[in-house]
Formats: sequence, C-alpha cells, structure tokens
Amino acid sequence: MKLLGLDPGLRTTGWGVIDAVDNRLRWVADGIVRSDASLSLAERLAQLHRGILAVIAEWQPDAAAAEETFVNQNPASTLKLGQARGAVLLAASLSGLSVAEYAPRLVKQSLVGTGRADKGQVGVMVRQLLPGCHASQADATDALAVAICHAHHQGTARRIAMALERAS
Amino acid sequence: MKLLGLDPGLRTTGWGVIDAVDNRLRWVADGIVRSDASLSLAERLAQLHRGILAVIAEWQPDAAAAEETFVNQNPASTLKLGQARGAVLLAASLSGLSVAEYAPRLVKQSLVGTGRADKGQVGVMVRQLLPGCHASQADATDALAVAICHAHHQGTARRIAMALERAS
Repeated sequence: MKLLGLDPGLRTTGWGVIDAVDNRLRWVADGIVRSDASLSLAERLAQLHRGILAVIAEWQPDAAAAEETFVNQNPASTLKLGQARGAVLLAASLSGLSVAEYAPRLVKQSLVGTGRADKGQVGVMVRQLLPGCHASQADATDALAVAICHAHHQGTARRIAMALERAS
Repeated sequence: MKLLGLDPGLRTTGWGVIDAVDNRLRWVADGIVRSDASLSLAERLAQLHRGILAVIAEWQPDAAAAEETFVNQNPASTLKLGQARGAVLLAASLSGLSVAEYAPRLVKQSLVGTGRADKGQVGVMVRQLLPGCHASQADATDALAVAICHAHHQGTARRIAMALERAS
C-alpha cells in the first residue's frame, strides 16, 4: 500500500511517498512544492494544489496523511498555514484519497518512542526506517514521518481486525 | 462584468454574484454552500470547493473577491477558517478568476461610508444597492457586500485609467 505524507506550508509544502507491505516500509519518493511569494494568495494556493495533484498523479498513492497543525501563537501565520493546508489536503481529497490526521506528538512518538523528540531525532529515524531515503529537506522529512506514522497505525488496526476475526 | 463575492467559512460559505455595468449594479444570484460536520476535514473542504466550482460553472463570473480574513482570537477557529478559505479561493483561482482581497473595514466603508458599520447596516445597504435582491442569509449578504466593494474599486481604477489616457 502506497502512502502519501504531507507537511503543508504556504511557502513550502513537503511530501513523501512510502510503500508499506505488512511490517516492511520502503521509501518511494519525496520532495517539496514551493509557491511563488510574488503572486497573489489565490495563485499561490493554486500552485501548491497543482503541485500536489502532480505528485499524486505520478506516484499513485492509495491513502494520505498529514500532521494536525501546530496552532501558532501568531494568528496571521496560523491563517496562512490554514489556507495552504486547505489547498493541499483538498488535492488529496479531490483525488479520492482518504486523509488521516495525526497529532505532532503522536507522529514523534510513533517514530522515536517519545512525543518530545526533536526534529533532528525524527530525521535520523526516518532515514533509518526507510533505507535508501536521502531526504535532506526538513519539510520532506516531516512528510515522510507522518506517512510512516500512518503505516504503523494502519498496521495496528489491521492486526486488531485479524485478532477479532480469529476470536469470533 | 459579472463579479463573484465570497465569504468563506468551514461550516457555511456565502457567495453572491452581481453584474456591474459602468456605475450600475444588478443582483444576479446568491446563496450558501454548507459542509457536513460529520465528515472528515478533507471531505468537508472538498464539499465547499465543489460547491463553489458549481456556482462558478452556473453563473460564469469574470472575477472574484473575498474579504481579508478577520483573524480570530481563537487560534483553532483561525486555522479552521484558513483551511476553508484556502479551499474556496482555490475554486476561483483554478477556474481562472482573479481573486481580489479587501479588508473588512474597506468593505464596510465602501458600502455604508464608515468602516465601523455593523452587519445590519451592511445588509440594508446591500439590499438598497441591489434592487430585487432578497438575500436573507448573513453569509450570502456579506459575500454580496464584498462583490459590491470590488465593483466600486474596479470602477475607480477604470476612471483613473481613462483620465490618465485623456491627459497623455
């Protein structure tokens, strides 16, 4: 099952695709989509949206996941992020993908074992869990992290379903 | 020239279409698009987006306008609004419409003559400036208000351009 992780931002949106087969994870691709700050807001949102649509068309993921947004203390930043997030999640949703959301603490916990891990630790774990992945851009690494978190949670949900089936 | 005004919100997004010919304004249509709160965020954004795409397909506006968002004191509300706003503005932008943004104070000023007008006064002026309009939903009235503001500003820009042409 191919999973698309998304880390939305107005200036830069990170994305990462992994392949999850049983408990094995495989890195497929990652990258960032930028918007041009000299354009109008609506045009920048369209750039992000089209960029993620292109990623989905190229890599054909089966499901998507994004971090629940860290609500910034600065309301103007929160609004900007919200708008970018809307444009990006919409690309997944209009492409027929379900979009799971995970709290940032949960993403860290599922990768590093503690919700208080820093960005550096998360990056190290992403590269360790996905051999062959050389993601160097922080936004792409964060996107891969949420994809991995989604794979873990889907795996757990599947194991519970199988256990219930055996028990019934 | 047909202008689409937008008042984005996650639960309800208001829209209004007016026709502006020289200094005369004509009401064309208005309404609201709702999202279903029982669905996931990404699905709700897709509902709003598709709703506004349908409005654009039906009424074929030439340009769009939205209020710059009032940044809420509650960061969670600001984020929700931002996401809805992203999905809605994107519908206009992907349809090839330019999306102008006006500060709420400017919208009020251009309708009522003061930036401190209340919602009731704005509603009265919208109905007065657009004979035949019976918009009763607040979100639709706000959307018509921003469309009227855009018409006024476009008219001013056109008059300045014509004056410059005559002077040259």
